[in-house]
Amino acid sequence: MDDAIRLKVQNSFQQQKIMNTIGASLTLVDTGRVEISLPFNEALTQQHGFLHAGIVATALDSACGYAALSTMPPEAGILSIEFKVNLLAPAKGRLFTAVGEVVKPGRTITVTNGELFAMESADSGPGKRVATMTATMMAILDRKDVTN
Amino acid sequence: MDDAIRLKVQNSFQQQKIMNTIGASLTLVDTGRVEISLPFNEALTQQHGFLHAGIVATALDSACGYAALSTMPPEAGILSIEFKVNLLAPAKGRLFTAVGEVVKPGRTITVTNGELFAMESADSGPGKRVATMTATMMAILDRKDVTN
Amino acid sequence: MDDAIRLKVQNSFQQQKIMNTIGASLTLVDTGRVEISLPFNEALTQQHGFLHAGIVATALDSACGYAALSTMPPEAGILSIEFKVNLLAPAKGRLFTAVGEVVKPGRTITVTNGELFAMESADSGPGKRVATMTATMMAILDRKDVTN
Amino acid sequence: MDDAIRLKVQNSFQQQKIMNTIGASLTLVDTGRVEISLPFNEALTQQHGFLHAGIVATALDSACGYAALSTMPPEAGILSIEFKVNLLAPAKGRLFTAVGEVVKPGRTITVTNGELFAMESADSGPGKRVATMTATMMAILDRKDVTN
Repeated sequence: MDDAIRLKVQNSFQQQKIMNTIGASLTLVDTGRVEISLPFNEALTQQHGFLHAGIVATALDSACGYAALSTMPPEAGILSIEFKVNLLAPAKGRLFTAVGEVVKPGRTITVTNGELFAMESADSGPGKRVATMTATMMAILDRKDVTN
Repeated sequence: MDDAIRLKVQNSFQQQKIMNTIGASLTLVDTGRVEISLPFNEALTQQHGFLHAGIVATALDSACGYAALSTMPPEAGILSIEFKVNLLAPAKGRLFTAVGEVVKPGRTITVTNGELFAMESADSGPGKRVATMTATMMAILDRKDVTN
Repeated sequence: MDDAIRLKVQNSFQQQKIMNTIGASLTLVDTGRVEISLPFNEALTQQHGFLHAGIVATALDSACGYAALSTMPPEAGILSIEFKVNLLAPAKGRLFTAVGEVVKPGRTITVTNGELFAMESADSGPGKRVATMTATMMAILDRKDVTN
Repeated sequence: MDDAIRLKVQNSFQQQKIMNTIGASLTLVDTGRVEISLPFNEALTQQHGFLHAGIVATALDSACGYAALSTMPPEAGILSIEFKVNLLAPAKGRLFTAVGEVVKPGRTITVTNGELFAMESADSGPGKRVATMTATMMAILDRKDVTN
């Protein structure tokens, strides 16, 4: 993929302070596909000690958003319009990877899917899918206040 | 409302370590309605300096979940099955309040709506609605591993 | 409201042949609010003899779409980007009314909510809410192929 | 797959009168996967002459519901709790196939995905994906009024 686009995604990711707060890193940037990983952290849990569904959504929304951004023109910014998350199983594990993929790119609207996998360790295979997301992203081409 | 139910919601909220991490507090617990507030915190932002959509979802999911729990029998636990968030405007403000309300209670499935309001300060009125959620919650009556 | 906008909504509704097929009529057109009613019809049922969830979605999507269109400039067309339906109770009744309302109008994206009510007869009050929809609509201002 | 389950799906499909009304037929029933096809019919269109989004949802909801039912015990009935549809492109074609697949089976809740493909004719290959659905289904094991 285009180096300038990859750099743009990496720069925007670094500006998302929440990513640092939850310990997330950008582990793959490809055209139409982005992966974000984060280790388990007790500070991010719900009442049963698993990752809170909102943190699941945080990783998935950024993965989906950057997957969309990777298919847009260099000058485009991106905005999440809406997303839906299905929680398939408790987000229980040592390491989590959110995979975002473009389903349908578009001039204005890009539809993406995301999946969150939970693993017991970094080398324990593809992991268990614990959540899915469908997210609708909008390209911003002319608004200074929301560009990336 | 029943004091035991209110206490149960408060106790579960305190066990959600993510609530402490994002600085959220439980500002209202009523039958079928729960409010959670949090101040702006740069550590929770996306690339434009606004609250990340996933943190918006975190506050809304907990508000919706506890609104549902407040209408369930004392022995019930709760599980988010799915939620959908629409982002109406940037989550820009000094203070945010997530309001969760039960739309339709049920023996197994409870449907809830949530709204996130952004305010410039604690006394600046009802605020601007910046996001909505629809969330489907399931009562857990017989599974030890997921009770609250 | 502007007569030209009302007429534009009515004309577009009449061009939706599915509305005639399911026996639906446009019972209210106001700025940001549209209602569509249809009688029970055995030809539209699922396996238990109730209105199929997809027909519930059909009435709600048109009500939401026209509610959005009523707030757009005269030259705008409209496109449903996505919708989510929650089925609260079986769609059981003699008459159904879908109410669509604008939650957040926008230059490009308009967010709407819909509710479907089931009644035993035309004069039996507001009815029972059996389904809700959140739908995201896009204004089409420059594409010949999708204008209304 | 088990013949009794296949027969159960086929019988339930035949009881959905809406399937006959829209000209739909059950073209594949496998464990966790069901396909429903329907020809273009002007009576099912929206204002631009394409299949109405609600009819897209009708075919997808049935395909997803029967995919879920195919993985449930013989005595189970099924209920759609909620679904979300993303409309990727106009539903324009001569023939449409809705494919429903189980993402995560469960004792109570089964999560499914659906895709609608539009083809110019029965032998024109896999077609163009014009819509996706995520649907949450609930097994009904003890309620006489909603069993299949």
